[in-house]
Amino acid sequence: MNDRKEFRDLAEPEDAREAISSLDLAPETERVPLVDARGRVLAERLDADRDVPGFDRASMDGYAVQARDTFGADEADPAILDLVGEVHAGEKPAVEVGDGEAVEISTGAVMPSGADAVVMVERTDEREDGVEIRTSLAPGDHVMLAGADVSAGQRALGPGARLTVREIGLLSALGVDEVPVRGKPRVGIISTGDELVRPGNPLSDQSGQIYDVNSYTIATAVEEAEGEPILYPHAGDDYDEMERLLLEAAKECDLVLSSGSTSASAVDVIYRVIEAQGELLLHGVAVKPGKPMLVGRFPGSAYVGLPGYPVSALTIFRTFVAPAIRNAAGVPEPTTATIGARMAVEERYGEGRMRLMPTGLVEDENGRALAYPVDKGSGATTSLVEADGVVTVEPDTAYLAEGESVEVRLFSPDVRPPSVFGVGEDDPALSRLLDELDSPRYLALGSREGLRRLRNGVPDFAIATNTETDAPTNTPEDASEGTELASYSREWGLVVPAGNPEVIEGLADLVERDLTFVNRGTDSGLRTTLGNAVADLADERGTTRHELVESISGFEMTVKAHESPARKVAAGSSDAGLGLRSTAEKLDLGFVSLGEERVRVLANPARERKDGMEELKNALDSELVGVLGDLPGVRP
Amino acid sequence: MNDRKEFRDLAEPEDAREAISSLDLAPETERVPLVDARGRVLAERLDADRDVPGFDRASMDGYAVQARDTFGADEADPAILDLVGEVHAGEKPAVEVGDGEAVEISTGAVMPSGADAVVMVERTDEREDGVEIRTSLAPGDHVMLAGADVSAGQRALGPGARLTVREIGLLSALGVDEVPVRGKPRVGIISTGDELVRPGNPLSDQSGQIYDVNSYTIATAVEEAEGEPILYPHAGDDYDEMERLLLEAAKECDLVLSSGSTSASAVDVIYRVIEAQGELLLHGVAVKPGKPMLVGRFPGSAYVGLPGYPVSALTIFRTFVAPAIRNAAGVPEPTTATIGARMAVEERYGEGRMRLMPTGLVEDENGRALAYPVDKGSGATTSLVEADGVVTVEPDTAYLAEGESVEVRLFSPDVRPPSVFGVGEDDPALSRLLDELDSPRYLALGSREGLRRLRNGVPDFAIATNTETDAPTNTPEDASEGTELASYSREWGLVVPAGNPEVIEGLADLVERDLTFVNRGTDSGLRTTLGNAVADLADERGTTRHELVESISGFEMTVKAHESPARKVAAGSSDAGLGLRSTAEKLDLGFVSLGEERVRVLANPARERKDGMEELKNALDSELVGVLGDLPGVRP
Repeated sequence: MNDRKEFRDLAEPEDAREAISSLDLAPETERVPLVDARGRVLAERLDADRDVPGFDRASMDGYAVQARDTFGADEADPAILDLVGEVHAGEKPAVEVGDGEAVEISTGAVMPSGADAVVMVERTDEREDGVEIRTSLAPGDHVMLAGADVSAGQRALGPGARLTVREIGLLSALGVDEVPVRGKPRVGIISTGDELVRPGNPLSDQSGQIYDVNSYTIATAVEEAEGEPILYPHAGDDYDEMERLLLEAAKECDLVLSSGSTSASAVDVIYRVIEAQGELLLHGVAVKPGKPMLVGRFPGSAYVGLPGYPVSALTIFRTFVAPAIRNAAGVPEPTTATIGARMAVEERYGEGRMRLMPTGLVEDENGRALAYPVDKGSGATTSLVEADGVVTVEPDTAYLAEGESVEVRLFSPDVRPPSVFGVGEDDPALSRLLDELDSPRYLALGSREGLRRLRNGVPDFAIATNTETDAPTNTPEDASEGTELASYSREWGLVVPAGNPEVIEGLADLVERDLTFVNRGTDSGLRTTLGNAVADLADERGTTRHELVESISGFEMTVKAHESPARKVAAGSSDAGLGLRSTAEKLDLGFVSLGEERVRVLANPARERKDGMEELKNALDSELVGVLGDLPGVRP
Repeated sequence: MNDRKEFRDLAEPEDAREAISSLDLAPETERVPLVDARGRVLAERLDADRDVPGFDRASMDGYAVQARDTFGADEADPAILDLVGEVHAGEKPAVEVGDGEAVEISTGAVMPSGADAVVMVERTDEREDGVEIRTSLAPGDHVMLAGADVSAGQRALGPGARLTVREIGLLSALGVDEVPVRGKPRVGIISTGDELVRPGNPLSDQSGQIYDVNSYTIATAVEEAEGEPILYPHAGDDYDEMERLLLEAAKECDLVLSSGSTSASAVDVIYRVIEAQGELLLHGVAVKPGKPMLVGRFPGSAYVGLPGYPVSALTIFRTFVAPAIRNAAGVPEPTTATIGARMAVEERYGEGRMRLMPTGLVEDENGRALAYPVDKGSGATTSLVEADGVVTVEPDTAYLAEGESVEVRLFSPDVRPPSVFGVGEDDPALSRLLDELDSPRYLALGSREGLRRLRNGVPDFAIATNTETDAPTNTPEDASEGTELASYSREWGLVVPAGNPEVIEGLADLVERDLTFVNRGTDSGLRTTLGNAVADLADERGTTRHELVESISGFEMTVKAHESPARKVAAGSSDAGLGLRSTAEKLDLGFVSLGEERVRVLANPARERKDGMEELKNALDSELVGVLGDLPGVRP
């Protein structure tokens, strides 16, 4: 183990930023067809090389005339002109307009020689002996002169102009069908780790394989930063393979990113490849997460090594790498990439190095953003979905007070705070109801955690269960837990294999017989309900709850989600699991009913009137009965 | 002309919105590879069908142990365990951990059977007789349990979720490589008009041809609204051709848009095709611009007819059509699509119908947006570049007061107010200097208009000229015109064909000889300078300025841009044109010098400290001398 690399002399984050900005990521200018130019950045100034319009042009349907022939004309005393021809848009005029003459003309047509004004058709009438003009015109009326819109030689667009719909319109008018634009930096992505498997392929849990997350998140983040991502195959920890892949990517790309070498040995391999083939500028940064970051260069390409955990990799990418890619691409960061918020809770630090804190957002009743730390380990991919972005906490910050202003760097400019945010019991009916809402966030962390967080005031609502024997109405204690918006009952019990081969009839079987059981975690309301039932059974038998629990094999084997025990049963690894009738039926398993428990939807009183909560209430009013009707074992 | 369609019974804008929202634009759900899913909208909820991680996983490099073997261990009194093997990430453990045993483990590896905790390598030392553990562990330390991140059966993402980097990370972790997403509405675009030519092809000015702008702007705007644009060939006004194209597009698309039929006769053709082949819901809307809007449907496709002028077409698209496309695509309008601003000037109305006012934006010293109307005819494509968006003015609004709050619907969510906004004289040196600035807007409308607008307080700076005989220092009058930031001289005179074949020596030749001349417009400072020179010559000769002007053939023939007279000379259509030495040399023409005039850069005193103005001042300080050195006929 002594050859493992440790990071003792960490660089300051500012040095890492400087090292990355010293790298040359700038791609060459390219020429793209106008139809593909949206969002690109003009590489050089473009001057108009023609007049727009290229000719004096009628801007109305009507008659081209000599203005002086209409002087004094009005409704009462119209001028009568001879109609000598017509000219349509896209035609070369075949006639001239002499004294006392008019030519019918359509919008966009070339002004015939001699004419200097157009009278709109609404102010005229055709008569047998000519055209009646019921208004006076000045020279130039309803005529757009050649070059009036754009003149040849005029500066049309400057270098660095972002090509949006407007600029594409101007370039079209000038007849430009291909434009010189800044190239997009090509960014090679190499995920390292022998355990990685690309999504869509089979996975062996026994061998410790996991799906590759970083390749896809970093590629997406590169696109969002206006770079062009190129995915390379996974590299294991083998020196030769790593060297071959890194050099191939360095040859083809402006920047090579690696990730996934969280084990020190893999970092060591990359470290050695870079020292042998390029130059290492920086090794280890005083930032959490992201300590093992590398910055260097190969001949012809820059290099940054990202940490392996997805949230860490993305956080470091967004903080240090994305700005450099945007800069090379010539595009500013979108204004939506950061959002100002106030801390929803106090948060303490004491680490002495910069912290990039994954942060969730929730809106208060006035639509202002509140930020709260998302406290999952950086290995958790769900942090990505539960957090909206990152708050940078400087090393000398001891704590962030509740209400303090922070700037949240969003994981993507498209990220929006959820419309409504709930925490609590995992429940199939609620889960279906969420499908009716605009963009809800719901963390199924159990009833206990839901109630705890609701008391802290962060979520908009919580879901918690009570057994039917609990007081069903609002007691003073309930009031402190929030306002009950709705409640319904669900049938719980033991999920057993289809056909119930062990003929399990109730809890007593688990206690008395040699059966294996899978439980839920202690945060789960269902687990509390089970605990109460065990206590009741103990009372009945004149023994202790502890005694009964000890005799249930697997009572302490807890799994996270409400379907997990049932899935263990389905997989044949347990005889019974704690679960709901609806889950058992969904998975075609047997079910031994042990009772009903009540699921309660509790609102944060400070948020009851926010839009997302109104939407939730509407859904509860209009959809809950239908959802309950579709699921077995539930009722209002 | 009596068969021309007139729009007498106009629908209210709200009815147009309703008619469009009654159309069915919704495309079918499609499945896309995860790598192409960025920005797409999930069509249905996705539940996790596996645990993440799929196994109990070490979250540190170190040793897997039984926690109870470390109870009481610390730096002073370490526990010594037997090292019985190792397990790396991606490997199936080949050993078990028994009492008093440890297994070396790397981050991400499967926990070997028997072990319930991991001690991090930093708290250990390998010794000859085993591993020294210098800390106590609790069961579960540095172990991520199977399903701890995501559990099988858990709701992963709901319908309508926008797939950003976060969601793509979660889907990767679940092994999903293809996702069901809402289809993008297919939007067919047909520009109509016999005069249209696609950019990149040659154009005949004589025949009144112009480049097609709408096809490209509407296609770009459709992409920005998350639809998929499909360009069809141009249609002329021929019934059969129009019918064939419209039906082809209707068959292939969810929505067909036409534009360009501003002439009533073309609208009539479309009108007749729709009445024959589909259903016309609405014909003409009480909105300016955009009166001749059509809404209808073909079998299998919706239809909207846009006005022909580019700004009008885009305005109507953004106001009425884009929301319907976004709605069908399931994506909200970006928050950057509108911006709040205050009116920089008062604006009066009296039209009695809704007005969609093209609006420019400029930022005040505090970075707040000010809005001003862009008063070009809707036929002008440059309005697209000079305006940033549209303000909707309701029919009953008589005026918008200076300082009044308005909401500007940007032409594109990527549009940003310019960093600095100037108006005034067209000048090659200034034009080059603008290339050094971040995102300037400069309207070359002449010195007079520049000074007028500076007095009104809208632009940040103006460019104006003085002849050298004018007072060069700040007089009280100058002060009212703004603060002079810099000035330089440019040589002006007559641009003549190369070699000066007519041997023109000065103004006297234009007066005395039968030569044709091209002038600039009266807003141009250069024209004023010429006027002064003519007046001086008149004084010299004891005649009037008017008399001399009358004897110059073409004195009243004015063209817009500073290069335009020279280009007329180059094209052989004139003997001499008013212009600058730098222009003559650029176009390889001859030049007869008539003097020097001073170009002054004048700042709006209320904006001098805004960032863009600081950038302008820096560029003037550091770049102006270099720019002047590169151009003939200019000097500091």
